[in-house]
Amino acid sequence: MRIGVLGTGVVGRGVASKLVDVGHEVRLGSRDAAHAGASDWAAAAGERASNGTFEDAAAFGELVFNCTGGAVSLEALEQAGEDSLRGKVLVDVSNPLDFSRGRPPSLSVPSWDSVAEQIQRRFPETRVVKALNTINADVMTDPGRVPGEHEVFLCGDDDGAKNDVRSILESFGWRREAIVDLGGLTAARGLEAYVLFWVNLMGAVGSPHFNIHVVR
Amino acid sequence: MRIGVLGTGVVGRGVASKLVDVGHEVRLGSRDAAHAGASDWAAAAGERASNGTFEDAAAFGELVFNCTGGAVSLEALEQAGEDSLRGKVLVDVSNPLDFSRGRPPSLSVPSWDSVAEQIQRRFPETRVVKALNTINADVMTDPGRVPGEHEVFLCGDDDGAKNDVRSILESFGWRREAIVDLGGLTAARGLEAYVLFWVNLMGAVGSPHFNIHVVR
Repeated sequence: MRIGVLGTGVVGRGVASKLVDVGHEVRLGSRDAAHAGASDWAAAAGERASNGTFEDAAAFGELVFNCTGGAVSLEALEQAGEDSLRGKVLVDVSNPLDFSRGRPPSLSVPSWDSVAEQIQRRFPETRVVKALNTINADVMTDPGRVPGEHEVFLCGDDDGAKNDVRSILESFGWRREAIVDLGGLTAARGLEAYVLFWVNLMGAVGSPHFNIHVVR
Repeated sequence: MRIGVLGTGVVGRGVASKLVDVGHEVRLGSRDAAHAGASDWAAAAGERASNGTFEDAAAFGELVFNCTGGAVSLEALEQAGEDSLRGKVLVDVSNPLDFSRGRPPSLSVPSWDSVAEQIQRRFPETRVVKALNTINADVMTDPGRVPGEHEVFLCGDDDGAKNDVRSILESFGWRREAIVDLGGLTAARGLEAYVLFWVNLMGAVGSPHFNIHVVR
């Protein structure tokens, strides 16, 4: 599949590399086409990898990952453009972390909203699925890095889109039973709020390489 | 120990009953001294149980549990009174759930604050520890109800107070290694935000009788 990945940070590059590894053609998108990190990534990642602007990457992809920071995601997607995103599945991995008040970070959205819902409202013909944002970038694409049972969560309003994302997560190494569907896109509020707790846990664990297992 | 429990809901009565079971003298506090549910609880819970106003319960306790709803906790503690709380450990179990916008609920505090910190600011001579709010009432006081490894979290600015709370949690059945200290009281922001994710999970699990295990 052709996949666009927006955002050239650790998450964007990590997701893009894994997507190339499992056989997709991937274009990494950044604000400026001449982004050195993105060009270096594309040069190193092989012939199925390329890079360009947010718009280039979104237009290229049959499916698009949003790996930009949550506080700037709407602006990045505005640059990608409505035409480039229309009808496509958008996997929103973003977290709305706001460091403007110092640490610990707060959220750039109120608790009655989420970045995922903001994106869905702005691009109603795009099918938004929130996924992967509760996990460190290294673990997202290599769940075996954390031993034992632990889960990845997703939510969205379109079941077909969620199935597409589930398939990609399985190709990343997530067992089907470790992929937990939390329902409609309003569940993104909880998934995004969770990141404040994740930051607490990272401090207690002393490493970002952990995850949670739901025990019942 | 003499313990005051503020709040006569499922959490307050559950915690109060467990505290009586493990040997404490417990006074359950409510807005009105004549609260029927609190009187019924005290009559059924035996001779170490009593009930009264928020102020009666707080003054009675050497340690105090806040089991009122997070959105009304400051008001309840105002009724309990500064003199009744001075110098004491206050275990804040509250969650700031706000249903005024419908479901899913939002939070009554912004992401850069928490009920626990609001309480600590208002009652600087009280030693606030946030604990137990990430778990259903039945599981709080009976961790074996969920099989296998899973954790309870606490945070606060006073290490002695956290040790006192750790002892109580152990008496509830929590293994010492299952009690995770998340650091200072600002971590309460993450613990309170987590409840939005907990609500998602409850929907997916189909029961409130679950918890999470941190896997590393």
